[in-house]
Amino acid sequence: MSQQNRISMEHGAGGEFMQQLIGGIILKNISRRSAGTVGLDDLDDGSTISIPEEMGDDYEIVMTTDSHVVDPLFFPGGDIGRIAVCGTVNDLTVMGAKPLALTCAVIIPEGFEISSFEEIIKSMNLAAEEAEVAIITGDTKTIQGNKLDSMIINTTGVGVAPKVVRDNGLSPDDVIIVTGNLGDHGIALLSHREGFDFETKLVSDVAPVNGLLKAPLELRTEDGQPVICALKDPTRGGLASCINEMAQKSGVGIILEETDIPVNMAVSTACEMLGLNPLEIANEGKAVIGVRPEYAEQVLELLKSHKYGQNARIVGKAVSEHKGKVLLRTSIGSLRQLGMPVGDPIPRVC
Amino acid sequence: MSQQNRISMEHGAGGEFMQQLIGGIILKNISRRSAGTVGLDDLDDGSTISIPEEMGDDYEIVMTTDSHVVDPLFFPGGDIGRIAVCGTVNDLTVMGAKPLALTCAVIIPEGFEISSFEEIIKSMNLAAEEAEVAIITGDTKTIQGNKLDSMIINTTGVGVAPKVVRDNGLSPDDVIIVTGNLGDHGIALLSHREGFDFETKLVSDVAPVNGLLKAPLELRTEDGQPVICALKDPTRGGLASCINEMAQKSGVGIILEETDIPVNMAVSTACEMLGLNPLEIANEGKAVIGVRPEYAEQVLELLKSHKYGQNARIVGKAVSEHKGKVLLRTSIGSLRQLGMPVGDPIPRVC
Ligand SMILES: Nc1ncnc2c1ncn2[C@@H]1O[C@H](COP(=O)(O)OP(=O)(O)OP(=O)(O)O)[C@@H](O)[C@H]1O
Ligand SMILES: Nc1ncnc2c1ncn2[C@@H]1O[C@H](COP(=O)(O)OP(=O)(O)OP(=O)(O)O)[C@@H](O)[C@H]1O
Ligand SMILES: [Mg+2]
Ligand SMILES: [Mg+2]
Ligand SMILES: [Mg+2]
Ligand SMILES: [Mg+2]
Ligand SMILES: [Mg+2]
Ligand SMILES: [Mg+2]
Repeated sequence: MSQQNRISMEHGAGGEFMQQLIGGIILKNISRRSAGTVGLDDLDDGSTISIPEEMGDDYEIVMTTDSHVVDPLFFPGGDIGRIAVCGTVNDLTVMGAKPLALTCAVIIPEGFEISSFEEIIKSMNLAAEEAEVAIITGDTKTIQGNKLDSMIINTTGVGVAPKVVRDNGLSPDDVIIVTGNLGDHGIALLSHREGFDFETKLVSDVAPVNGLLKAPLELRTEDGQPVICALKDPTRGGLASCINEMAQKSGVGIILEETDIPVNMAVSTACEMLGLNPLEIANEGKAVIGVRPEYAEQVLELLKSHKYGQNARIVGKAVSEHKGKVLLRTSIGSLRQLGMPVGDPIPRVC
Repeated sequence: MSQQNRISMEHGAGGEFMQQLIGGIILKNISRRSAGTVGLDDLDDGSTISIPEEMGDDYEIVMTTDSHVVDPLFFPGGDIGRIAVCGTVNDLTVMGAKPLALTCAVIIPEGFEISSFEEIIKSMNLAAEEAEVAIITGDTKTIQGNKLDSMIINTTGVGVAPKVVRDNGLSPDDVIIVTGNLGDHGIALLSHREGFDFETKLVSDVAPVNGLLKAPLELRTEDGQPVICALKDPTRGGLASCINEMAQKSGVGIILEETDIPVNMAVSTACEMLGLNPLEIANEGKAVIGVRPEYAEQVLELLKSHKYGQNARIVGKAVSEHKGKVLLRTSIGSLRQLGMPVGDPIPRVC
């Protein structure tokens, strides 16, 4: 492949080469390029975001960021571009916010194939279209090829929330729902990376959850509060890390019914063989929901009617005892603690 | 140095190790941690930003992002932490926005010294304090030590602008001002990196320009428009890239008086020896301003009264001829084109 088909250091130098890369690959492939009066096409020092009128006066702006160092860049069910968009859309969503705009900051090693770069940008675009969020500004830096092994993407998102939903809002009796099978992303990525040959093909769950959670997030109790009282996405550290944080921050105990936690058979088999706990594995298209008990069934039904929520399950509830701890009730009825993981067993999954 | 003093892969794994790093190094050293009801201390999936009341109803939200891959991390006059904060504050400022909040997304190679990490976070904090901007959310990822040579920081900023100022707003007769000496950052970094031994010590100009530009940005013409009609920061590609973009986007010509362009003697000597053009070298604490001619002297005086504007100069003006081109008038009166640089002659300066 010729030099022209690869990234050179000049593509990150702020001159004509960089302009060509941005114009030829980025602007051309991104379809939602504006969220206000200054957008991606303007190639100014930044871009603007207008707050949609339907928000009225009583909202908050929400901001979140994630860098992505996933290895390899392409894997079954997705690629780094899809993760970069979905991860940030999901963090905005689990704050109760409607995602409005994302940034796209890429760091590319010299020698990287421009065709792969374009594929990744196209994938970001598809995910952004699905999530109905604009990509409005970005940055492009290059690093010498021997000093970085692979492309890195940071996306930062801004959204707007009529009511912010925290991860610390659980009270005793609140019901815990997970929106689908756990562990798919981490195990699919690991298997692909290490070349494991499981019988069933494992596929990442990477997806935006804002569509899935839109209707449940709009439900209100009689006194006008969101029926979803706590919300978090179980990414690095999996459900174990996520639910322990929710328990600690809310000051409640949580009891999970082990047999109700949805795990794909292929994932549980793979985990058993590899000595991993599926509850500690990263997900990229799931949410853990705390919901007021009277509304649990209604939320569950709403979730199940969406393509990303078909395996949603009620998995447990908050209790006033065991403050800050998470207990698993096993099939024979005994209780065992689900601890906060020390590290994630699988590096570079997101 | 023991293992405990260095970053391990687990510090980016979403579990207890990462929590300790964030709590022990980041939260402890950052003093402005909130810009709304949910802030850095809450360690939620994101944070919130409230729009200051003095903005009234007629504002726009501005967003910008930059990743920083500067090599080396520490250099005369600054470090990657200071650049990361100032660069994003400056992009918000040159959009006419008041910076409200920043994110801090770090990517750290395994083996990196935690004491250096802490120094960098402290430097981010000092710069954020100076710029009066909060750091409200972030992300921490690790990469195997043989796959990344150095730390990378992305900062994304959100600000609010009563009137957005673009880089395309020049009309004929508008006056061009630069806020100080050009080329200091790139040449200081290059000299330090390559071990050049110039007689005068070269120091980066990295600084937040929001304080410097506050008063000039508030000036209004009789019909209520900003007297600053175009604004950009001359980072990668230097003044040459910046002013060419302003000319092209505004559809005007620009004539710069070569002898009026402020360049530090040490920088021009170094550039001569190295065969570089100081006008193509990156700056990290400067702005290029287009101002309505009647207000040029007033803006200049305001700039000169600020510590970061003492060397501010009127360097030229926009003209109706030579559309999209920048011409330098030399000391003997001849005109010569200042072209858009192809690439930046010095890689990894920001
Ligand atoms: N990867 C990208 N995706 C989307 N837009 C990008 C990307 N890289 C750059 N851009 C856009 O191109 C324009 C120029 O980017 P550039 O990074 O040069 O601006 P800057 O931040 O003002 O300069 P510097 O990075 O030198 O500080 C900006 O409008 C930016 O939003
Ligand atoms: N470098 C950092 N600077 C400031 N805050 C940070 C930094 N790294 C993480 N944080 C904060 O720590 C908390 C946990 O971060 P984490 O990245 O685990 O959240 P997340 O994005 O929801 O998860 P994931 O990155 O796995 O998707 C967040 O509140 C985040 O803002
Ligand atoms: Mg800029
Ligand atoms: Mg995240
Ligand atoms: Mg940039
Ligand atoms: Mg999250
Ligand atoms: Mg910039
Ligand atoms: Mg994160």
